[in-house]
Amino acid sequence: MGNPVEVIQSVKLDDENSTLILLDQTVLPNETIFLELKEMEDVWDAIYQLKVRGAPAIGIAAAYGVYLGTKKSNAETYEALYEDFKKVKEYLASSRPTAVNLFWALNRMEDRLKKEAGKNVSEVKAALKEEAELIRAEDEKICESIGQYALSLLETGWGILTHCNAGTIATAKYGTALAPIYLGQEKGYDFKVYADETRPLLQGARLTAWELQQAGVDVTLICDNMASIVMKEGKIQAVLVGCDRVAENGDTANKIGTSGVAILAKHYNIPFYVCAPLSTVDLECKTGEDIHIELRPSEEITSKWYEKPMAPKDVKTYNPCFDVTDHSLITGIITENGIAYAPFNETLPKMFQSNK
Amino acid sequence: MGNPVEVIQSVKLDDENSTLILLDQTVLPNETIFLELKEMEDVWDAIYQLKVRGAPAIGIAAAYGVYLGTKKSNAETYEALYEDFKKVKEYLASSRPTAVNLFWALNRMEDRLKKEAGKNVSEVKAALKEEAELIRAEDEKICESIGQYALSLLETGWGILTHCNAGTIATAKYGTALAPIYLGQEKGYDFKVYADETRPLLQGARLTAWELQQAGVDVTLICDNMASIVMKEGKIQAVLVGCDRVAENGDTANKIGTSGVAILAKHYNIPFYVCAPLSTVDLECKTGEDIHIELRPSEEITSKWYEKPMAPKDVKTYNPCFDVTDHSLITGIITENGIAYAPFNETLPKMFQSNK
Repeated sequence: MGNPVEVIQSVKLDDENSTLILLDQTVLPNETIFLELKEMEDVWDAIYQLKVRGAPAIGIAAAYGVYLGTKKSNAETYEALYEDFKKVKEYLASSRPTAVNLFWALNRMEDRLKKEAGKNVSEVKAALKEEAELIRAEDEKICESIGQYALSLLETGWGILTHCNAGTIATAKYGTALAPIYLGQEKGYDFKVYADETRPLLQGARLTAWELQQAGVDVTLICDNMASIVMKEGKIQAVLVGCDRVAENGDTANKIGTSGVAILAKHYNIPFYVCAPLSTVDLECKTGEDIHIELRPSEEITSKWYEKPMAPKDVKTYNPCFDVTDHSLITGIITENGIAYAPFNETLPKMFQSNK
Repeated sequence: MGNPVEVIQSVKLDDENSTLILLDQTVLPNETIFLELKEMEDVWDAIYQLKVRGAPAIGIAAAYGVYLGTKKSNAETYEALYEDFKKVKEYLASSRPTAVNLFWALNRMEDRLKKEAGKNVSEVKAALKEEAELIRAEDEKICESIGQYALSLLETGWGILTHCNAGTIATAKYGTALAPIYLGQEKGYDFKVYADETRPLLQGARLTAWELQQAGVDVTLICDNMASIVMKEGKIQAVLVGCDRVAENGDTANKIGTSGVAILAKHYNIPFYVCAPLSTVDLECKTGEDIHIELRPSEEITSKWYEKPMAPKDVKTYNPCFDVTDHSLITGIITENGIAYAPFNETLPKMFQSNK
């Protein structure tokens, strides 16, 4: 039963060479390039150019960037090193000012630095490396835990539909929605995964199909508008998606189209699961109504990727980046601390209390 | 109230010059080219190269092709002309052997020829021109009638969502699903139309958005996976789609994704209408189960239109061309003879009896 599965890690440290090994996600699926980044400037550039994407992966890359940047400091005292650290932090913070996880990681690195107050410079540098490694390891652990809880809901041979990319390359390892696929693959679950291509940015086609294929998972690419027919034909036994933000009542913001998939799943009586690290569960946000939906430029729909424009010149478009899936459509929200079921405003807060 | 609206006619005869004026749909939306076809060989080529698409438009083009081809005959007797006609018919039939409407039109032209038995050659040629013009005019009348019935269901200022292209360029004039939009535009209904781009072939982006824009209709292009959010946000008051085939019980085969839109419409309590000329209603076909779904090549999803492939090499795809929308999801089926409501197996047959 089962085969050893090589699950891609998109951000990791080559400790011997003090090099960050980072998968360039901008050239997928046509080229597979692992960048070798030795300078914080390289890390800045990779974040800025979206070579690394996915909130956890960005945070991890930034933490390693802090380590690489601070390591080069010639400071001889803790205080001098702290001054250099601040420059590094400020510099990296400018790479993608809207990425919440970037700031979370930079602040966590600073908290660690503060804890090391008074130690000698090389001890502090070692601590920063350790903290970056911890951030990475914790994220992997979270993904693995989500994967195990999710896997407990699935059966051998099932067809699984997913939307966008909530995969290993967006995280330290395993991903969120794809974690049970990888864990199941190791155990011989023989899932048939259907990946929505996810217009307009095609994360499903370019990323999800690619990373699952790399791991030998049986994956079939479909257009977003084919989700209904594959469900109707009995090809799908569960839907698994990631999320950007979950409100206290369970309303979930995720990539545009997710709410449509949830409605189809309900229609066809197929369970619909959201895989959500607790870092994305925002109890301060009471319902989906509080979630602002970002609108994106027209050209993503009309001409991006294409040889020539595929819509009339100056046509009006509506291009929301996310939508909110109503909690009533969600069978369960799978966190690293367990699975929350409705009523979510009672069960989600408990997930935070059950830290193991 | 209302403005004169120029509704594009994609297939029409320039009688003075014995020329078929045909919109080249393969170069839309980047170029608007009306071809001037004088020889039946040009018509053959236009059909073969898919420059004309849409069942009615293909039939009309073929009928005109018959006229142009037969007109060139040097025959001096009815019998000799019939021999030449047969060659023309056989030749045009080879342009797209899977197009049902092509054969329907060619046979109808032959029926007319038979009716003219014994007349002199120039009278017969005139009759063939007349029949081709009749085929065109009848289709326009059907579309206009569907448009009027559909318009009776809609209100000023409504948001209308449509999928794929069931527009004027696929028919003689007006289209089916888009007919009420054009008729409403003339009367100042001020509809806001949302056009699904309709992956993988992008008929919504390339054709529907284009033809509505040409007529000055307020059209917004969205990706297929955005239908849910525009409905949720209250932007849509009705869905109008065309169809390829309607079964006796109302199950409707139409472009892939239609069934998903219907499920979303039901979820959001939005009426979902199918616009169906009676030529597409097949009472011999009892339910959607009898409708065979064609599977199309991978490259339509993975690389067509794109600058470079947008999916991993050799990824498995599933690319059904159509899906079947269950009759339970359909609010009404709008024909040229009226609107059928559930139970469709009782109301659809009556539509055939109520020929005006």
